[in-house]
Amino acid sequence: MGAPLGRRLLKAGFSLAVFTRTRSRADELLAAGAEWADSAAELAERVDAVISIVPDSPDVEQVYLGPVGVCAGPGQGGLAIDMSTVAPGTAVRVAEAVQQRGGQFVDAPVSGGKTGAEAGTLSIMAGGDAEAIERARPIFAALGKRVVHCGPTGNGQLTKLCNQIICGLNLLAVGEALVFAKRLGLDPKTMLEAVSAGAAGSWAVDNLGPRMADRDFAPMFMIDLQQKDLRLALDAARLRTVPLPGTALVQQLLTANQAAGEGREGTQALLKTLERIAHVHN
Amino acid sequence: MGAPLGRRLLKAGFSLAVFTRTRSRADELLAAGAEWADSAAELAERVDAVISIVPDSPDVEQVYLGPVGVCAGPGQGGLAIDMSTVAPGTAVRVAEAVQQRGGQFVDAPVSGGKTGAEAGTLSIMAGGDAEAIERARPIFAALGKRVVHCGPTGNGQLTKLCNQIICGLNLLAVGEALVFAKRLGLDPKTMLEAVSAGAAGSWAVDNLGPRMADRDFAPMFMIDLQQKDLRLALDAARLRTVPLPGTALVQQLLTANQAAGEGREGTQALLKTLERIAHVHN
Repeated sequence: MGAPLGRRLLKAGFSLAVFTRTRSRADELLAAGAEWADSAAELAERVDAVISIVPDSPDVEQVYLGPVGVCAGPGQGGLAIDMSTVAPGTAVRVAEAVQQRGGQFVDAPVSGGKTGAEAGTLSIMAGGDAEAIERARPIFAALGKRVVHCGPTGNGQLTKLCNQIICGLNLLAVGEALVFAKRLGLDPKTMLEAVSAGAAGSWAVDNLGPRMADRDFAPMFMIDLQQKDLRLALDAARLRTVPLPGTALVQQLLTANQAAGEGREGTQALLKTLERIAHVHN
Repeated sequence: MGAPLGRRLLKAGFSLAVFTRTRSRADELLAAGAEWADSAAELAERVDAVISIVPDSPDVEQVYLGPVGVCAGPGQGGLAIDMSTVAPGTAVRVAEAVQQRGGQFVDAPVSGGKTGAEAGTLSIMAGGDAEAIERARPIFAALGKRVVHCGPTGNGQLTKLCNQIICGLNLLAVGEALVFAKRLGLDPKTMLEAVSAGAAGSWAVDNLGPRMADRDFAPMFMIDLQQKDLRLALDAARLRTVPLPGTALVQQLLTANQAAGEGREGTQALLKTLERIAHVHN
């Protein structure tokens, strides 16, 4: 996700410095005019606003709190925006460290995937105080089409977890309908067309349905990452003893995909688990 | 659903005769210019096209095959359109009876609810031969915005069952996200706004989410009817041994609503079951 976000920022006229753990992944942005920084700490010294997007909570903690992380350099009152999807508690811990150094922190996970990042149409779920979020708005404007202030630090992450609860069940909805359609003799694409305009309509029907029907399992969003997000949602729910029976079912079915070595395929490969349990052969 | 469909047809310039089991339910259409028929048989003799919409399979069988049903009058080669959601096998049986009398039959269940019926924006899922469906198109044009020919007789019903599988799980998605949001301290409507524009977007998020947040459980579509539809879907799936774990879960959770006496509330009252199992008090 870092590359398309960087491209959007360059296109909007921002100057950009980048640090990635694997330097080759920055090649394209460097060729497009971004500068290289040798660490998060060095990068933080050179910019007005740090933007991070990494896979999981420990990665964010390392980017901000590690020995060469954002908070290891001299304090500067800068703005830090974390667009990763991580534990709400991680957002709170990192925000405290940034604020202790005079900076401002916004947790701002996104929905819309690589396609949304490339088109600048992401939904951005922002947590933090209003002043920090106002300061981040010119950056958000280059990256997303909807920016919602969800409350204090961590609420961006909690809102993203709601988003993932819904995405998981909407995905299961399309998968079950397609397995049913196939076994009952319906044409999958005709079925999708018929249901998409009514009360069954969803982003998942429009975007994952046709890919399932075409057996195109290339990732828009990988199962391993969806599972990480569902783990965060179920962890947060467990801490408050909130039962989420549907979300837990989705998480178990996607675990069956991971068991079959399909963790790096797109979430629409859930269809393959549903077909295996229904003994559907293609 | 009969009343708004009748109003749309009158508005489009069709002349209309109506028969309902409870005559008072036709009062408004009669006042608006429709004629009364004393039975389905009598109605069928007077019109070019019969349109039926009733709650369940036995009701459709009675309307067409009963002693004063459509097929009890003299044959006339008329068109019969059943817009009810019923078992695919019922559609096949009724179609055979209509065709034996020289008529044509289309199973054409709809999605979009009372709101869609009033606005003429229903999705219509039509099963039958192409000639019958072409004959029905002027009628469909007055009632819906999307008409999809889903294949031979019964495929309209099977497609509607796919629709209901998706609706059920999309409903559970919104309910689980809202219970999670509430217990984790998020503002429900802000959460819904943040997720609705991205990959979690759905008709259910847009239409059932705000009603859940407002605790407005008035029916757009009653739980008892959704349960009838899920029963039809799970019956059809069982006959082909198709496991639908998510759909079965939704059906069980809505059974808990029925146990609590909430069967005549809107499907969004699923939230109340999720709150009871999470011990959320309002």
